[in-house]
Amino acid sequence: MIKLYEHPLSGNAHKVRILLGYLGIAYEGVHIDLPVQPEKAADLLRHNPLAEVPVLIDGDVVLRDSQAILVYLARKYGGETWLPSDAADQARVVQWLSFSANEIYHGPNLARVYYLFNFELDIELAKKRATRVLQILDARLASRSWLELDRPTIADVACLPYVALAGEGKVELAGYPNVVAWIDRLRSRNGFIPMPGFERPLAV
Amino acid sequence: MIKLYEHPLSGNAHKVRILLGYLGIAYEGVHIDLPVQPEKAADLLRHNPLAEVPVLIDGDVVLRDSQAILVYLARKYGGETWLPSDAADQARVVQWLSFSANEIYHGPNLARVYYLFNFELDIELAKKRATRVLQILDARLASRSWLELDRPTIADVACLPYVALAGEGKVELAGYPNVVAWIDRLRSRNGFIPMPGFERPLAV
Repeated sequence: MIKLYEHPLSGNAHKVRILLGYLGIAYEGVHIDLPVQPEKAADLLRHNPLAEVPVLIDGDVVLRDSQAILVYLARKYGGETWLPSDAADQARVVQWLSFSANEIYHGPNLARVYYLFNFELDIELAKKRATRVLQILDARLASRSWLELDRPTIADVACLPYVALAGEGKVELAGYPNVVAWIDRLRSRNGFIPMPGFERPLAV
Repeated sequence: MIKLYEHPLSGNAHKVRILLGYLGIAYEGVHIDLPVQPEKAADLLRHNPLAEVPVLIDGDVVLRDSQAILVYLARKYGGETWLPSDAADQARVVQWLSFSANEIYHGPNLARVYYLFNFELDIELAKKRATRVLQILDARLASRSWLELDRPTIADVACLPYVALAGEGKVELAGYPNVVAWIDRLRSRNGFIPMPGFERPLAV
């Protein structure tokens, strides 16, 4: 059975949980305390020198990085649906994996980390980046239902958690109706696994 | 002919130039002034709401984000060599695309941007992140020639430029012999396209 090193409040782990849910794949969760304390997490560190969740283990395959794990699950268990093999379509999806790893991580994710876990960081910069993320996504979703192609892909899954949790970083989603509608579309799909804090955007 | 919106000092554009060189593909470069001034770069903005180079145009295909462009070129023109289609191997490579988009961008890239382009940013944080990047890469490359698999892939190409240019961010490569040897291996391959600043690490 697939094993996932995770924490219930990790949006990066939740990307993986969401895709596992959509794909209908059962998994065994391994709880890791956050923030990761290297002396207590030797097993995680062996698999991931970045000392982060998620890590996925599927037989011989050990992967760190939520985007890479989404690519693996999509290609291994999702056929052409979640990540097509066509060069151009695959690259279109990957654009948003980078957006998730860079802009979303350093925007809404860090703003949330500041308020939820009391990390020392430049909160004004994180909020400015989060606002820009929401502006770009709202413009992108003004004329389309999904970030790429004619269906949800791992582009949407990778971007969803920290955007849906933006309110926990005191960045309100109220001014971004296309983003809120997109979150609702993803939430209403069969197999969707919710996460604490996901209720918030819908209440605005 | 493939068109690439680029700037000679952009490490992100250079990732693409390097892979085009390895693949032996000619392209037409479109010079974009940096930092991008939105009022002068309407064409770029139409293709990329993030207002960044590179952007690649290949017939009908328009892509932003250096990682996505590497995926496209590798899948379209590189067979199985630069990005395999096997789920696990593809995901292994993607781990380093995220590492490039997040850790390398916010580490050695931002340190360089601070000294080269006088951007206001937390230079101590950027240097701390750059050091961690080099530690992780040096440990990874202690027992292997390439970041994944038994050959160079777009994992190596994506990570190369800003690591090779770390000296321009006043982060010295001298203490990371495995990284320096890896840079040399990539530089010595047929078709490699150099970039201003790439000489520096080899002189340390």
